Amino acid sequence: MKIAIDAMGGDYAPKEIVAGVELSRDENPDIQYELFGITDEIKKYLKNDQNIVITQADEVIEMGEEPVRAIRKKKQSSLVLAAQSVSDGKNDAFFSAGNTGAVLAAGLFIIGRIKGIDRPGLTTTLPIVNGKPGMSDKFLMLDVGANADSKPLNLYQFAFMGKYYAQNVLNIENPRVGLLNNGTEPDKGDMLHKEVHELLAANKDLNFIGNVESRELLNGAADVVVTDGFTGNAALKSIEGTALSMLRLIKHGITDGGLRDKMGALLLKNVFGSIADQMDYSKYGGAMFLGLKAPVIKSHGASKAEIVKNSLAQIKTIHESGMISDLVDYVNDHQAELDAIKESVKNRK
Amino acid sequence: MKIAIDAMGGDYAPKEIVAGVELSRDENPDIQYELFGITDEIKKYLKNDQNIVITQADEVIEMGEEPVRAIRKKKQSSLVLAAQSVSDGKNDAFFSAGNTGAVLAAGLFIIGRIKGIDRPGLTTTLPIVNGKPGMSDKFLMLDVGANADSKPLNLYQFAFMGKYYAQNVLNIENPRVGLLNNGTEPDKGDMLHKEVHELLAANKDLNFIGNVESRELLNGAADVVVTDGFTGNAALKSIEGTALSMLRLIKHGITDGGLRDKMGALLLKNVFGSIADQMDYSKYGGAMFLGLKAPVIKSHGASKAEIVKNSLAQIKTIHESGMISDLVDYVNDHQAELDAIKESVKNRK
Repeated sequence: MKIAIDAMGGDYAPKEIVAGVELSRDENPDIQYELFGITDEIKKYLKNDQNIVITQADEVIEMGEEPVRAIRKKKQSSLVLAAQSVSDGKNDAFFSAGNTGAVLAAGLFIIGRIKGIDRPGLTTTLPIVNGKPGMSDKFLMLDVGANADSKPLNLYQFAFMGKYYAQNVLNIENPRVGLLNNGTEPDKGDMLHKEVHELLAANKDLNFIGNVESRELLNGAADVVVTDGFTGNAALKSIEGTALSMLRLIKHGITDGGLRDKMGALLLKNVFGSIADQMDYSKYGGAMFLGLKAPVIKSHGASKAEIVKNSLAQIKTIHESGMISDLVDYVNDHQAELDAIKESVKNRK
Repeated sequence: MKIAIDAMGGDYAPKEIVAGVELSRDENPDIQYELFGITDEIKKYLKNDQNIVITQADEVIEMGEEPVRAIRKKKQSSLVLAAQSVSDGKNDAFFSAGNTGAVLAAGLFIIGRIKGIDRPGLTTTLPIVNGKPGMSDKFLMLDVGANADSKPLNLYQFAFMGKYYAQNVLNIENPRVGLLNNGTEPDKGDMLHKEVHELLAANKDLNFIGNVESRELLNGAADVVVTDGFTGNAALKSIEGTALSMLRLIKHGITDGGLRDKMGALLLKNVFGSIADQMDYSKYGGAMFLGLKAPVIKSHGASKAEIVKNSLAQIKTIHESGMISDLVDYVNDHQAELDAIKESVKNRK
């Protein structure tokens, strides 16, 4: 397979992007990598160009730029050229650690949506840290921020896109799909989530287990957590922030403590390491804009080589599973059903 | 002052409610407590009835009951009679650890809203665990779940109600008010939050610091975090769930570990205790339905005596600060402004 890489996107680009690509290449001799960016900069860090080609891009989209304007103005940017190469069929997938909005805009306007999918959902994998026996050790959440305002049909589509991802990438045979809501009872929620609950409960192709609350996500409340991009973003960032704060609290408690605390910390080093590791969901790879014609993966702006490598491994899994063509087929086969839902929601208003 | 207490609400009622009231009474000889509930049940646990009277209530509203129906049907319930006593002027404030929806419904329909406030906001206090020097060690968040669907004016009102609470109860002179959003830039958010940002930025009585992200809440991003009840609920429960999961991870890591891990844990006992303590926001008391004519405080269903005592201390602070009458005055003085906002938002649609 062939992957297009925005070598200039991210806080540590191009150094860590290049290093991550080389780590990936060393493990995957069957992948071809095309790095888009400022050739001289990339060459500074590239040790061995086996299976790696560089394509010059004269411009760079910065983190703070307004996304749609950036991709329209900077046609020669690494991000735009990388996305364009996927649209042209030269590459199979697109990876960037750059400006999230610009990656989404490039995905939407250059690579394009799957026919029948109204909006892509930003999809991330998080750890299940207190799950029951037999559960997966990861769950999926979408949308965590591609869309600020969502309609019932968008969340409905996220549910079955999430199902395909969980089956193909997380290897969960019959994923439990839950709707993130403000209570578990079926009648809970705002107008949007009440409508979505009805739609999901009526779909017999989904293993819909009802509403789930954000308090239970890390306990494995569902394998696929469906949410609107505004709430999902708040929940994801709350989980991140709390995990980081607690790790810092432990660290400070120990740093500010006496010899006793420091000895205790030394003895518990493995335990702390494993906790930090379990909470660090970026090790599973980046977030995927699910609903586009090709895999578009965005990793954290602060991504280092290891995360870039893991994101590329995730892309390989997605590509080899054929999940996107399966999704295209599913949407084609169910177009009448999706149209009917769009109509029924419209008429209820 | 006089406090009406729903002695039958909560998982450990009436035992822990009665015990908490006695702890509070021992510290506050100037408070009169009226316990509403099944007299025989309450008497089983009441050791000393000094400053405590019991009023018989024949019915109990259960946790799972539909709130509005419950308060309409069970007129002789402890929850309804306690709220009624505040409405009748016999008590100054209402406390319950029972059915949250029923407490809200009793607050709305029996005690009533402050004139000019459209919807109350459920207000909770959370710890700032990694704040900067000079910051408060707590912040306020509202609405965390009183309303599933919100309008821009609701959030605008939450902002100045939160300001009064932070000043009067947390003793923060000029509280920094932030809007929970999906990014810090002023143009971020869904339609609702974009409108609210404009309204708050235009209010010169508020120290509005702009948008804040949920990742930064525990780092002290703002003293008053304004949010809609759906998103706020998801953020609060994510923080709770993550903190609990991490404490459990540490505990399991140690339990499943060898002698080395157990020794380390023993040495770090104080550090872990202080972390659990810092993350346990219920120690600050219950959540308040801010915007009602009297203090209405709801603590966790699982509240034990210590939390009941702390919630009663919180009620005393609120009462003595006179914040509710200050709020009434502010709304009266600014009614024209609030009406104008309501009109302007309507016209924009």
